[in-house]
Amino acid sequence: MERIATRVTALLGTSYPIVQGGMIWVAGWKLARAVSDAGGLGLIGSGSMSPDLLREHITKLTSATDAPFGVNVPIFNRHADAFIEVCIACGVKIVFTSAGSPGKYTARLKDCGVTVVHVVPSARLAQKAAAAGCDAVVAEGTEAGGHNGFEELTSMSLWPAAVDAVPIPVIAAGGIVDGRGMAAALATGAEGVQLGTRFAVTVESSASEGYKAAAVKAAEADAKLYLRRYMPTRALVNPYVRQAMDAEAAGAATDVLDEIRGRGRARRGIFEGDAQDGEMEIGQAVGRIGDIPTAAQVVARLVSQYVETIASLNNTIGSSGVGDQQQLNRTDT
Amino acid sequence: MERIATRVTALLGTSYPIVQGGMIWVAGWKLARAVSDAGGLGLIGSGSMSPDLLREHITKLTSATDAPFGVNVPIFNRHADAFIEVCIACGVKIVFTSAGSPGKYTARLKDCGVTVVHVVPSARLAQKAAAAGCDAVVAEGTEAGGHNGFEELTSMSLWPAAVDAVPIPVIAAGGIVDGRGMAAALATGAEGVQLGTRFAVTVESSASEGYKAAAVKAAEADAKLYLRRYMPTRALVNPYVRQAMDAEAAGAATDVLDEIRGRGRARRGIFEGDAQDGEMEIGQAVGRIGDIPTAAQVVARLVSQYVETIASLNNTIGSSGVGDQQQLNRTDT
Repeated sequence: MERIATRVTALLGTSYPIVQGGMIWVAGWKLARAVSDAGGLGLIGSGSMSPDLLREHITKLTSATDAPFGVNVPIFNRHADAFIEVCIACGVKIVFTSAGSPGKYTARLKDCGVTVVHVVPSARLAQKAAAAGCDAVVAEGTEAGGHNGFEELTSMSLWPAAVDAVPIPVIAAGGIVDGRGMAAALATGAEGVQLGTRFAVTVESSASEGYKAAAVKAAEADAKLYLRRYMPTRALVNPYVRQAMDAEAAGAATDVLDEIRGRGRARRGIFEGDAQDGEMEIGQAVGRIGDIPTAAQVVARLVSQYVETIASLNNTIGSSGVGDQQQLNRTDT
Repeated sequence: MERIATRVTALLGTSYPIVQGGMIWVAGWKLARAVSDAGGLGLIGSGSMSPDLLREHITKLTSATDAPFGVNVPIFNRHADAFIEVCIACGVKIVFTSAGSPGKYTARLKDCGVTVVHVVPSARLAQKAAAAGCDAVVAEGTEAGGHNGFEELTSMSLWPAAVDAVPIPVIAAGGIVDGRGMAAALATGAEGVQLGTRFAVTVESSASEGYKAAAVKAAEADAKLYLRRYMPTRALVNPYVRQAMDAEAAGAATDVLDEIRGRGRARRGIFEGDAQDGEMEIGQAVGRIGDIPTAAQVVARLVSQYVETIASLNNTIGSSGVGDQQQLNRTDT
């Protein structure tokens, strides 16, 4: 396969500027290995692990591949301090931080020679990450699954704004499930992509079969952003999410929403496959996901469709009269 | 300038697949002429006009240009029947319909030889438009200014879904303000773009100076989607919009929101420039608009940046080691 080179591939040491999101209950060492071995960057998602379990996943992944990989650490997590120290002790070279201030761990990680990438929902926070010394940012639009920014900036608004706001490379996330989305992201000036939902629905994902089946079945408007004023989260609509949304619409206070939410909802939804009462965190573009391929197949499709897409774009320029025969990029993915 | 050819330019007879949204209080014959003369498709926005005023604008535009142009007709408007008949009587060749069923006027227009394009917020409604006989659809993501779909599908979710759903060409709208956004849209398989906010903030736009100044000043998260469960509308946040959003958050019923909204808000905001109590309908990408160019300058920038963007995308493929020198598409627009 052809290579795709940007500042992101140079930074991460990968063949392609493709990152697999470090999603809770989804991204263990098996998924990360599959993505890294296929030429992307696999991430272990620490957010649903204990520090000991994270160490185990890192150790297994280190033994299993020579390709670069990373770990995602949600800064608000009660184990975040321990996660960071586990990463450093295990010699992890790349850490993605999210959901918190980039000032908290960046200096410590950089002092240990770790590449740091921070996930942001706005250009303003991209600037904060750059100022904190991060090597790159993931600019994640509100169409992404899971926890989201309050600003609700969409990918098409956010990506080019982040690119213009910071000198460091921008990795685009939110709404990308194929090579057309990857080409769109790079057209806005991003130099890499991070995909969550697409990699969550693969053979190597730790998500339950129930979660994967629900994702394949979902229609275009089924992934809802809920808890908007409290803890914005995008998940598949189901009886639990509907109950929370109805309470929100009726003006429920935070403590009421907190009680409806309770604990362990994401585990129930993603890991246990409870389609009624679980929170199945998932991106808005889930309606365009129709199969459960291997992670390597996802990477290969992304690369080949990216190349095809750019060829189609080239064909739009400089001529006339071709428009009536031509239809760009119509593919079933 | 180079030409850009797709099925949309073939359908509309334009040099570029660029459409100026037919916005209320913004899009009179002067703006439409400027866009059409520059090689795009200018649209007169009938929604804020009387049928007589629409006839006047069409007559002036017909005298002023030989380039193709069109009229936007909001189907829910109380004058919609009259608007359609005025268009037919005046020999308008292209009508964009929005905000209502595509079944209502498409057959009548097609019988008179008019090209019909319908604006949709979902792939499902794109299919409905195609089934009704429309020649193309505008797929408009929730980042767009003004009235929006309840589904809140973002451009990155919607555009490729619409492309895959219908055989007719898709024109992408929502979040596009420059040539990078145009390239992103065409990468997803769309064959044209419609820009609202960018053309609303031009010399020839009928919007008030106050509206244009507010747009130039706006930051990245200032354009809010409000009245989400009643009449989803994206507008600049100001004391009026904040009041309505607070009422919504507290669970206010539709009649309460209707009373807060009252009548004539869009006129006050857009046409009269009332930054306190008016509804300044505007897209989320307004934070990336920093000047008030002519419409022809907007078109020229779109085309040149589109061509540059595709050149940058070509440079990502097939080589390695260039990533550390290269930074895609970083431009100030």
